[in-house]
Amino acid sequence: MEHRTGTAASVQEAPVPDALSVPELLARGRKLCTPPLRSAVARLAAPMDTVAAYHFGWIDRDGTPMAGDGGKAVRPALALLSAEAVGAPAVAGVPGGVSVELVHNFSLLHDDLMDGDETRRHRATAWTVFGPAQAILVGDALATLGTEVLLDAAVTGGASATDAARAVRLITTATRKLIDGQAQDLSFEHRDLVTVEECLEMEGNKTGALLAAASAIGAVLAGADDRTADALERYGHHLGLAFQAVDDLLGIWGATEVTGKPHWGDLRQRKKSLPVAAALAEGGEASRRLAAELADPAGRGEESEQQLAARAALIEQAGGRSWTQEEARRQHKTALAALDEVPMADEVRQRFVALAEFVVVRER
Amino acid sequence: MEHRTGTAASVQEAPVPDALSVPELLARGRKLCTPPLRSAVARLAAPMDTVAAYHFGWIDRDGTPMAGDGGKAVRPALALLSAEAVGAPAVAGVPGGVSVELVHNFSLLHDDLMDGDETRRHRATAWTVFGPAQAILVGDALATLGTEVLLDAAVTGGASATDAARAVRLITTATRKLIDGQAQDLSFEHRDLVTVEECLEMEGNKTGALLAAASAIGAVLAGADDRTADALERYGHHLGLAFQAVDDLLGIWGATEVTGKPHWGDLRQRKKSLPVAAALAEGGEASRRLAAELADPAGRGEESEQQLAARAALIEQAGGRSWTQEEARRQHKTALAALDEVPMADEVRQRFVALAEFVVVRER
Repeated sequence: MEHRTGTAASVQEAPVPDALSVPELLARGRKLCTPPLRSAVARLAAPMDTVAAYHFGWIDRDGTPMAGDGGKAVRPALALLSAEAVGAPAVAGVPGGVSVELVHNFSLLHDDLMDGDETRRHRATAWTVFGPAQAILVGDALATLGTEVLLDAAVTGGASATDAARAVRLITTATRKLIDGQAQDLSFEHRDLVTVEECLEMEGNKTGALLAAASAIGAVLAGADDRTADALERYGHHLGLAFQAVDDLLGIWGATEVTGKPHWGDLRQRKKSLPVAAALAEGGEASRRLAAELADPAGRGEESEQQLAARAALIEQAGGRSWTQEEARRQHKTALAALDEVPMADEVRQRFVALAEFVVVRER
Repeated sequence: MEHRTGTAASVQEAPVPDALSVPELLARGRKLCTPPLRSAVARLAAPMDTVAAYHFGWIDRDGTPMAGDGGKAVRPALALLSAEAVGAPAVAGVPGGVSVELVHNFSLLHDDLMDGDETRRHRATAWTVFGPAQAILVGDALATLGTEVLLDAAVTGGASATDAARAVRLITTATRKLIDGQAQDLSFEHRDLVTVEECLEMEGNKTGALLAAASAIGAVLAGADDRTADALERYGHHLGLAFQAVDDLLGIWGATEVTGKPHWGDLRQRKKSLPVAAALAEGGEASRRLAAELADPAGRGEESEQQLAARAALIEQAGGRSWTQEEARRQHKTALAALDEVPMADEVRQRFVALAEFVVVRER
């Protein structure tokens, strides 16, 4: 299990008032964004509406309604908060929260299919239940709805036409980066060696871009100037990189729910994550042994627990684990520094800080 | 072979000047739109740029440049023409032409994969060459670029921010209809009976929507009022339906290039196209026999040439062929009537009329 309390060192000490606790911020995002999200999805032609509802966890495969909360919903919470950053009510960020959630789920639907992943959040992925064609189609539809809900905001008066168009640009740029990142991730599968820089670029595209958009889109809809939007985007971008660094650590040393022991999951899949890239870059004895092991096609996919534990130890000896822990701290700090550039009410800043800590400090 | 000269009955008699011939209109669209289309595609992360270049016919599977013209490019030609409809130079429609071409090719990439089609324009489809994941990813990327090029037009001064946003709405709505149409088309595969209304709705989404957007997007970028844009959209929508009716006729009675005889292609695939839907709706003796044959699972996919010819004869006896020919004429006429609502220079109108005739009067 990865205890990452150290990353919280730079967090401000001001207590977060009860009314603004992270669970409540997340609950507010879900409460305000889920109804319009459901309305948007309900516009889809059958059976796409059903496939989407299954994917979001609103119904099971038989169509029975489920009480599932559809994930943590960090992105909608950030979108609402970013409206508050410029003094607007949280509700001004709702179209942005719905949009980022639609785009996020478009990418999940397509990535699960491309990667051949059969489960997500302990449920069968949509393509395994409804077939690849429906997963492609519904992913396409969600991405398109992600633009529509922003354009609708201009029609219903939720935002000016100019600000809605700026929000469309924000989400479109993020979507393209998301796609670039997935292309890079897929290409890494065919390579033995990936540099730290390539890995960071991929993670910036795949994780940083949409969190950047989420952190600025509410502010943009509420008329933020470019400088404010840019700083909020950087907060989200670096938060995404911090999140991903922690995710890469948990992907190797994270504990399974059952045994409480490290599962070495990313090592089993030979995933080119930050700890591996950093260890390979170090160049010492452990680093060279790791490189030789990874270049050897023999035994690929058949490694024993012992072999995987030994490989994790090599990564740790070559400094891959500590470098990535340091990187998570750096990115977390940079995210908070970007926040300091934006003048905002203290309680709003505290919410951003608390959400950042929640995203970065995780145990699995 | 389907001779459809009859559909030209309603076309104005004014001669189209040499400088405005249909081949020249199409060549102009390709000449103005292909360079920015290539620039947009070149923005994609490797190997997506290569996959897209293969799909567009710019390179072969080994990366060797090809002289292929990338299809007829009717949509870019319409986009440029629609700018001229409101008195702007054709070049004002270029971002629109590039956008509709990107979205059209997004749908081709995904539809080929969903439908399992292995060839397009006598070439192996992208998913068979580069794998399903690349086809999904590059389709996603092209759809996103389709929005980006319109937003860029506002940045480079090619259109006002307001008009660029209106163009984004146009292309987004068309994209969603395209997806709805593909969902409907896929759902028809699992049914024995499809009504004429359902068939028309599907074809309006799958073919009409993007031609509608193409026919108005240049005008919108050039600042057309809503009434003008709406009339041009209707021109394109009905043109799409006319095109599709002809396509459905050719899908059954169209000749193969080799034998010059009907290939019965859509009957072999049991496609629910307009002639079949119209024949089934007629309700007479031939109609009932056709319904019984189509409901019978025996011999499905193993029909002889003779059996297929007999089925085509049943469709013709039940009036499916003549109804669809009539429908093509009606839609063609309605398209031209919509055009009459827009005041424009005579020579521009003649180009629209000539392009409509080119799209509707085809032999294969």
